[in-house]
Amino acid sequence: MTEETTTNNLTRFIERIERLESEKADLVADIRDIYAEAKGMGYDTKVMRQIIKLRKMDPADRSENEYLRDEYKKLVGIND
Amino acid sequence: MTEETTTNNLTRFIERIERLESEKADLVADIRDIYAEAKGMGYDTKVMRQIIKLRKMDPADRSENEYLRDEYKKLVGIND
Repeated sequence: MTEETTTNNLTRFIERIERLESEKADLVADIRDIYAEAKGMGYDTKVMRQIIKLRKMDPADRSENEYLRDEYKKLVGIND
Repeated sequence: MTEETTTNNLTRFIERIERLESEKADLVADIRDIYAEAKGMGYDTKVMRQIIKLRKMDPADRSENEYLRDEYKKLVGIND
């Protein structure tokens, strides 16, 4: 392929990536806004992130995680 | 507010975040696909990422960056 074609392809790839990166940045800002809104209503956003992780897990893995978490808490003496 | 309302608000916040996180994951996958496509056409994707960073900078900062980069290369003996 000619140098001209190469340049155009590269620019095209880069512009496609930049468009998607810009949409991604918008989503990240929207997510940040929701956390801020939730925080403003008194929710603990660190715990919200933990809950979102738990909801992502399949039920068996989550069950196992929660069971082990309780066991490990006991083993290291966390009683709360 | 009642416990019931609290639960609903929390669930609503979490579901909004999950929806946006899912759109974000789709974009990340799309971006990965474009890099793969570019790589398949022979482009160096590490350098593409450098170019995308340069295009993000304002022209004066970019100029300064490129000037200093050349100077620093000389100072540490990178001649290529």
